[in-house]
Amino acid sequence: MKLLLVGYGVMNKRVAKLAEESGHEIVGVLSPDEENNCPYPLFESASEKLPEADCLIDFSHPSLSKKILTSDLTVPMVIATTGEKEALVELIDKKASSTPVFFSANMSYGVHIMIQLLETVVPLMEDYDIELIEKHHNQKIDAPSGTLIKLLDVIKNRARSDANEVYDRSETTEKRNQKDIGISTIRGGTIVGEHEVLFAGQDEVISIKHTAQSKDIFARGALKAAEKLVDRKNGFYTYNNL
Amino acid sequence: MKLLLVGYGVMNKRVAKLAEESGHEIVGVLSPDEENNCPYPLFESASEKLPEADCLIDFSHPSLSKKILTSDLTVPMVIATTGEKEALVELIDKKASSTPVFFSANMSYGVHIMIQLLETVVPLMEDYDIELIEKHHNQKIDAPSGTLIKLLDVIKNRARSDANEVYDRSETTEKRNQKDIGISTIRGGTIVGEHEVLFAGQDEVISIKHTAQSKDIFARGALKAAEKLVDRKNGFYTYNNL
Amino acid sequence: MKLLLVGYGVMNKRVAKLAEESGHEIVGVLSPDEENNCPYPLFESASEKLPEADCLIDFSHPSLSKKILTSDLTVPMVIATTGEKEALVELIDKKASSTPVFFSANMSYGVHIMIQLLETVVPLMEDYDIELIEKHHNQKIDAPSGTLIKLLDVIKNRARSDANEVYDRSETTEKRNQKDIGISTIRGGTIVGEHEVLFAGQDEVISIKHTAQSKDIFARGALKAAEKLVDRKNGFYTYNNL
Amino acid sequence: MKLLLVGYGVMNKRVAKLAEESGHEIVGVLSPDEENNCPYPLFESASEKLPEADCLIDFSHPSLSKKILTSDLTVPMVIATTGEKEALVELIDKKASSTPVFFSANMSYGVHIMIQLLETVVPLMEDYDIELIEKHHNQKIDAPSGTLIKLLDVIKNRARSDANEVYDRSETTEKRNQKDIGISTIRGGTIVGEHEVLFAGQDEVISIKHTAQSKDIFARGALKAAEKLVDRKNGFYTYNNL
Repeated sequence: MKLLLVGYGVMNKRVAKLAEESGHEIVGVLSPDEENNCPYPLFESASEKLPEADCLIDFSHPSLSKKILTSDLTVPMVIATTGEKEALVELIDKKASSTPVFFSANMSYGVHIMIQLLETVVPLMEDYDIELIEKHHNQKIDAPSGTLIKLLDVIKNRARSDANEVYDRSETTEKRNQKDIGISTIRGGTIVGEHEVLFAGQDEVISIKHTAQSKDIFARGALKAAEKLVDRKNGFYTYNNL
Repeated sequence: MKLLLVGYGVMNKRVAKLAEESGHEIVGVLSPDEENNCPYPLFESASEKLPEADCLIDFSHPSLSKKILTSDLTVPMVIATTGEKEALVELIDKKASSTPVFFSANMSYGVHIMIQLLETVVPLMEDYDIELIEKHHNQKIDAPSGTLIKLLDVIKNRARSDANEVYDRSETTEKRNQKDIGISTIRGGTIVGEHEVLFAGQDEVISIKHTAQSKDIFARGALKAAEKLVDRKNGFYTYNNL
Repeated sequence: MKLLLVGYGVMNKRVAKLAEESGHEIVGVLSPDEENNCPYPLFESASEKLPEADCLIDFSHPSLSKKILTSDLTVPMVIATTGEKEALVELIDKKASSTPVFFSANMSYGVHIMIQLLETVVPLMEDYDIELIEKHHNQKIDAPSGTLIKLLDVIKNRARSDANEVYDRSETTEKRNQKDIGISTIRGGTIVGEHEVLFAGQDEVISIKHTAQSKDIFARGALKAAEKLVDRKNGFYTYNNL
Repeated sequence: MKLLLVGYGVMNKRVAKLAEESGHEIVGVLSPDEENNCPYPLFESASEKLPEADCLIDFSHPSLSKKILTSDLTVPMVIATTGEKEALVELIDKKASSTPVFFSANMSYGVHIMIQLLETVVPLMEDYDIELIEKHHNQKIDAPSGTLIKLLDVIKNRARSDANEVYDRSETTEKRNQKDIGISTIRGGTIVGEHEVLFAGQDEVISIKHTAQSKDIFARGALKAAEKLVDRKNGFYTYNNL
């Protein structure tokens, strides 16, 4: 597979390395920024003459992704950018009429599976208390993590629209309200990322937990999506229909 | 709800206690055995004149359950007996034409949910290694547990028909075979029961885990099934259609 | 062993049951409250003529414990009351010259062991981030639990006197400070009690975790302490010197 | 710090990288094997004229380590070789009279801490059932891991000399014997390494668990030992006296 990368930050550097290890070729990098030490042909914008590619992988930022999506490019696209989700989805919808486009807010296949599990099970657990716990390294500045917020959204969309997030229980001396969803955020060392959903009921607890060992899961997810996408018809793809 | 219990062993004693705490009434116990200290009217066989009841809960043994299922009784029935599953299912099929009958090999709602989760997810995890782990108290004589065997069956039925169970890795020095499903059995103290399924892939692990705090989950499951069953039409019910 | 109970609340009812199961005898209950359905001889105060006993177990409240400790009683004493710790310790110090007295803020042997582990390890872990997590049932009104606060005290006393407890990370977008100790409080279902201490460092995490399956661990701890105390000389005993 | 590496396998390659990231210098590699792509001066044997160094880090194999230890070298030495432990310890004892030597069968500081914890706690847990669990990636050929065997040795040395290891419970239908130590070996995906010791008692469980996120913990442990060793007097050092 000949791959064109959009952006050359931490994630696309890993995509490049993993792609080459799997026998794929990086034909170029599209980035308006100065990319020092980039061993691939660099292109500043989508209006330049770009090399032929089987697929494009975009791990950049919404402003660049929007330019790509509104350009004339018709190569299959894996859009792995985070942020401005609604704007991107709207543009992908249009672009999908002329090329296959894959988009996911979280490129990890395992997190996608966790979401599937929650969609299956949350509607069946109305008598259970739900608690969310995530763990990350001590350099992370946002809390809770974006993935936890995504899991919370899935839970609320499925059966708990009136849920009340609780971040701190030390200030009150009241019993847990049935509508509460407790959110615990643990930070320490170099923990890559863990997300757990607890369903605690009468005399039993069910836990669904995802542990990441490396950020490579996101790069690898994008690469796997690309491998499947190249054989697909034009359209808007997610993990649910790929 | 007026309840008739079939059998008066450990489980139905708990059913009786929990039922009364919820405002239900035990109108009698059907058991051919001598039941000392049973505070409810005792009946030796289904051919006696039994008291009127809204539902019957059977936590006995297959020989007695078979007699109940082939008797003239048409009261709604929750059959929670373990063993001789095929024979029981055949008889329940017949009985279900004249009364609603609920049957489950494991009365815990949480274990039922765990099975649902596996049915959803196993077909999507073909690249992941599956490992099963269960923990129980130090008095348990069988290993692995019946519930683990049930989980294993679900996994094999869904996508891993050629799986190879591995109980001991200390005897070989070979890499794990992709078709292996490792089974770990931990015994100690008074642990009530834990069952975990691990899906271990490239740089990520997903775990689904059920922890029981008390055997009451089985008694409570039967009671909940009875509460719902009394309003149902004749038919064969499981957790999937109740 | 002939046992005199002080107080007849939830815990001493369990002590009585477990004691009798182990072949011990309850010779009386000392309680100023009206204790309905108490099957043992009741005594209102320590100034009454009390039956002979090998040991006294006090699971009452500080006001009653103080009366016992300032009375003329010289029977071996297990003081398992919580609250007003300093006042009690002062009185126990005096009483210990005339009879053996055991005192612990947490009667669970396992929690005592967890404290021992922390005292061993905390001074060796200065490069590691410490996080505390506890889980309890949804009826618990205080958060964090008393046991977690005890564990936190041990950690601060050993090596982290300048630690800064963090209960909520959702309000800031700053990196974890090395002096932080994050405290997560999870509530749900009927979870009896879990306490975990995480030491997260560069590429490794050490966890020490205690899981309680029943409140009987406290009653059983008191009973075991009594069994050992009856053979001891006068003095102030804790888990460290019993 | 000027470092001389003995061996240039996976571990010392990481040592070199991490050392340079910390501002240390690799002055040479001593290895009788052909080391392609080694960017440092190569020396075939300890009898060559070696560059001046502050410390030597040996991640090779016993045959080479023995040569180093019987050579005339008097530079401080971190011996991180596994295998032939007794022979190495004997030679280190001699060498330690002329230079400081650090030796540990497991260079991870966290595993060392876990051993400390076991030494503290095992003698206090005679009423508890002990179970050991380890998890590793699906390419590992030995089971159980060397670290688990080390932990088992510590447990047996401290209080359970008559312990009976149990690797497979599926073949018998007998209760757990009090002297059993169950050993569970889980293999899957790319799990770097987890080791857990469970103490399961009456109504409570204590768990001590170590999770490795990267093999760097071994390289980093050697490097930290070297940093401390350079200021020490001649002698035999381990994690216990460094």
